[in-house]
Amino acid sequence: MSNGIKRHQPGPVLSRAVEYNGLVFVAGTTADDKSAPCRRQTEEILGKIDAALAAAGTDKSRLLWAQVWLADIREKPEMDAAWKAWVGEAKPARACVEARLATPDTRVEIMVTAAK
Amino acid sequence: MSNGIKRHQPGPVLSRAVEYNGLVFVAGTTADDKSAPCRRQTEEILGKIDAALAAAGTDKSRLLWAQVWLADIREKPEMDAAWKAWVGEAKPARACVEARLATPDTRVEIMVTAAK
Amino acid sequence: MSNGIKRHQPGPVLSRAVEYNGLVFVAGTTADDKSAPCRRQTEEILGKIDAALAAAGTDKSRLLWAQVWLADIREKPEMDAAWKAWVGEAKPARACVEARLATPDTRVEIMVTAAK
Repeated sequence: MSNGIKRHQPGPVLSRAVEYNGLVFVAGTTADDKSAPCRRQTEEILGKIDAALAAAGTDKSRLLWAQVWLADIREKPEMDAAWKAWVGEAKPARACVEARLATPDTRVEIMVTAAK
Repeated sequence: MSNGIKRHQPGPVLSRAVEYNGLVFVAGTTADDKSAPCRRQTEEILGKIDAALAAAGTDKSRLLWAQVWLADIREKPEMDAAWKAWVGEAKPARACVEARLATPDTRVEIMVTAAK
Repeated sequence: MSNGIKRHQPGPVLSRAVEYNGLVFVAGTTADDKSAPCRRQTEEILGKIDAALAAAGTDKSRLLWAQVWLADIREKPEMDAAWKAWVGEAKPARACVEARLATPDTRVEIMVTAAK
């Protein structure tokens, strides 16, 4: 904690999550298993987001908004299947667009903001 | 309202808008009339954003930031023409980039955050 | 200042930065020298972000989150070299994806949110 800002898991370029004034910003998250198809990559990502939110003292029921990037927008139904199974009743605002991601086999990346 | 968070028009994957702590997050918004060109799609989207902001008790004069995604960045002048006619004096911070969107005829998608 | 919102450098479509409730939203920022390669464009952008944060009474040690768009995701190491040299210990959450930007020679665009 420094000046009201708490940073979680700082790495060489970013912090995994940053807390400030009741808001928790979780960094863009990708799957480790890049050989998995979009749905399974999404499931892995959502598990990582659960862990990041828990470390910041909150959970998915307090999501405010989310951004989803897909390597191929035609895989949106696959991502949404995993998302719907996870998100519960407390749905955030969300935007989902296509973008080329860090590596060619990265199918999906998700960034969320939650209330603490 | 649950734990200080208010969610508007929750659907199967997202809420149209989420309020928390004086902030209103409006989901990525696209036009219904996908046959319209970029400028008219933008006009429809901005009308939808007006409605979402009104439902959350705020309006475009309290916009904080916005993201705009264009299916073809060369259509930015078309989007900006509609945006300038709408935005008024109280301009948000904004970023605008190209992205392939949910369907091939979706020319533009906009997400905003406003103060309540 | 109007209703608790302070806008910096309003232009025809956006404000360079917007302050509200302890948060500072800086608009998507690109380099003026479009002939420069990705790393130098990033350096110029980060200098502009420093100036925008200073005008809003804050600085990079209070960054909360950032979005980076690269015209070619394969140039991420170039961008990251400039980013690492700049960001210091207080790293924000961040997402970085590829996107076609406003002009073909715009290699990178960055948007940040900071605590005041």
